[in-house]
Amino acid sequence: MKLNIALLAGDGIGPEVIAQAVKVCDAIAVKYNHEINWTSALTGACAIDDCGEPYPDSTHEVCLAADAVLFGAIGHPKYDNDPKAKIRPEQGLLKMRQKLGLFANVRPTFTFPSLIDNSPLKRERIEGTDLIILRELTGGIYFGERGRKDDGNTAFDTCTYTRFEIQRLAKMGFEIAMTRGKKLCCVDKANVLETSRLWRETVQDMEKDYPEVTVSYEFVDAVAMRLVQWPNSYDVLITENLFGDILTDEASVISGSMGLMPSASKGLHTSLYEPIHGSYPQATGKDIANPLATVLSAAMMFEDAFGLQAEADAIREVVNKSLAEGIVTEDLSGKNKAYGTNAVGDWLAKNI
Amino acid sequence: MKLNIALLAGDGIGPEVIAQAVKVCDAIAVKYNHEINWTSALTGACAIDDCGEPYPDSTHEVCLAADAVLFGAIGHPKYDNDPKAKIRPEQGLLKMRQKLGLFANVRPTFTFPSLIDNSPLKRERIEGTDLIILRELTGGIYFGERGRKDDGNTAFDTCTYTRFEIQRLAKMGFEIAMTRGKKLCCVDKANVLETSRLWRETVQDMEKDYPEVTVSYEFVDAVAMRLVQWPNSYDVLITENLFGDILTDEASVISGSMGLMPSASKGLHTSLYEPIHGSYPQATGKDIANPLATVLSAAMMFEDAFGLQAEADAIREVVNKSLAEGIVTEDLSGKNKAYGTNAVGDWLAKNI
Ligand SMILES: CC(C)[C@H](C(=O)O)[C@@H](O)C(=O)O
Ligand SMILES: CC(C)[C@H](C(=O)O)[C@@H](O)C(=O)O
Repeated sequence: MKLNIALLAGDGIGPEVIAQAVKVCDAIAVKYNHEINWTSALTGACAIDDCGEPYPDSTHEVCLAADAVLFGAIGHPKYDNDPKAKIRPEQGLLKMRQKLGLFANVRPTFTFPSLIDNSPLKRERIEGTDLIILRELTGGIYFGERGRKDDGNTAFDTCTYTRFEIQRLAKMGFEIAMTRGKKLCCVDKANVLETSRLWRETVQDMEKDYPEVTVSYEFVDAVAMRLVQWPNSYDVLITENLFGDILTDEASVISGSMGLMPSASKGLHTSLYEPIHGSYPQATGKDIANPLATVLSAAMMFEDAFGLQAEADAIREVVNKSLAEGIVTEDLSGKNKAYGTNAVGDWLAKNI
Repeated sequence: MKLNIALLAGDGIGPEVIAQAVKVCDAIAVKYNHEINWTSALTGACAIDDCGEPYPDSTHEVCLAADAVLFGAIGHPKYDNDPKAKIRPEQGLLKMRQKLGLFANVRPTFTFPSLIDNSPLKRERIEGTDLIILRELTGGIYFGERGRKDDGNTAFDTCTYTRFEIQRLAKMGFEIAMTRGKKLCCVDKANVLETSRLWRETVQDMEKDYPEVTVSYEFVDAVAMRLVQWPNSYDVLITENLFGDILTDEASVISGSMGLMPSASKGLHTSLYEPIHGSYPQATGKDIANPLATVLSAAMMFEDAFGLQAEADAIREVVNKSLAEGIVTEDLSGKNKAYGTNAVGDWLAKNI
């Protein structure tokens, strides 16, 4: 197969971890007889530095022309903590999500038996956790009208949702649930918010189309608790953009495998795969960043974007092998020898 | 001293836990020579059942006339999960907060050495945790304009904050921090929301008035992570209403002492003290509910509302003694004998 992949390495450790994923994908291509055509483009702080725009039109063209996008991480401390900064790398992320129509962020949280003791949670709490949070990514308060009044002394943000936006996200949630534990939890704040009441109404109306799926409705504050108490009681969760931002990050730390968690953002025009970790500026250039989350994001890409299951499984297998044999970066090596980012990538590619 | 206390027992286990706090307060009054004048009033589901209103005017009058309010819990399953329900017990809560001007919710999270193993977190993660989240309680998206458009197919909610609202909450945050570890974390989403940028700006402008306080600014998603990873790295956190709702609940489960956590809501016209747990309908009338969070809320009331430190300390001391001697309800008794709600209350009152 011919695979056209846009490569958005981004900032910080982004380029380093992306480089390892490329090695692994290229090894897969050789083994399974595919031809990968990589096209790199700038986004984030590096794009601001280059042309003053965190998501330039030229990058957008590259993404549109590709079959899928592999993304590293963006963000640079020089743009942080300045509420008055005019241009921020994150704006690139939001613009990209909107222009590519990436309305669904798929964030799995699962455990690796060998890493379970890295979790801040006790073993019996986290064992068996395998959940997916489906976060709406192009609506809500992220994209509503906002501004100031009263000489800047009053600020406002607007959260808006349409039935259509909720339906397309919920449909994906029901469908994912059908392939798994057949449990769907709709997370909202329907006791306060009108948008949440529309979410709940809409999902309730869809229940009849998926009679095999058991649907529950929970308030976001209750979910924030239960994720820490009994994460293994969840299967698939669907939620709006801001709640999803908070809950996916909370969920990411409970497994103890943050450095390994992949994600997908699916949309109208293409789909994008990225590790959930950030650009980790302090680690940049030190050859210590863990590339496994990016490599596992590439596995998701093979499975989801190209329907290539054997290729995805082969990547996951070699990642498991590297964990079992201790060919890992310092965040996972414990008292044993730590490998560099590049060495891990080379080992994975060689063992495909 | 003459103490006029409004008693809002509420629903579910509310009346049972409140009854124990009353016993303890009455014992304190005898010992320290105070005269407590209790006035009971209805709120929540029981008030809806009584007069169709979750926070009736008559209850509001009782609260206004009192020096402080002691609150149980509200909520009843018959009003849950119905997005179209016209009247909900929670509306009473919101109306009460607004009409009493309770703009600051003070939620401590701390650990009891003897209960640390109840935490879902590993001991080394949770040990030493002693933080306070100060949640803005009468602004933001809870009280903004909301509604539907397009024949009900579009819903919206508006989040609004004024500089004044932020200042009065932040001032309290700085002042609390001065009495403790002198660290203040402002939690926002300033990389996306205009209201958050106003929060950050406003708090930054106030830093110069509290040169001893070290202020940090963190995004809400990052805090949702760090609360699980390193809760003991926080001192005082300030945040807006909705973020506070999620984070205070998340924080409440990490200590393993959910059944013991008190809270205060401070405001313009009075202040209110309540356990953070809910109305726990399944336990109602079974004499199994843990009264300690309500009893400790009464301690906060003596300290904060009346400035009676010795009385507050005496209550905390007897609670610690009950924990040490195992005079506790079934949620804390482990393999040992469990005491009933009433028995625990009686024991506490007797040992004051
Ligand atoms: C950087 C920020 C705008 C972004 C978000 O809030 O969506 C990030 O936190 C994420 O979750 O991808
Ligand atoms: C019941 C609900 C409206 C309320 C809130 O969201 O404020 C509750 O969750 C709380 O935190 O007191």
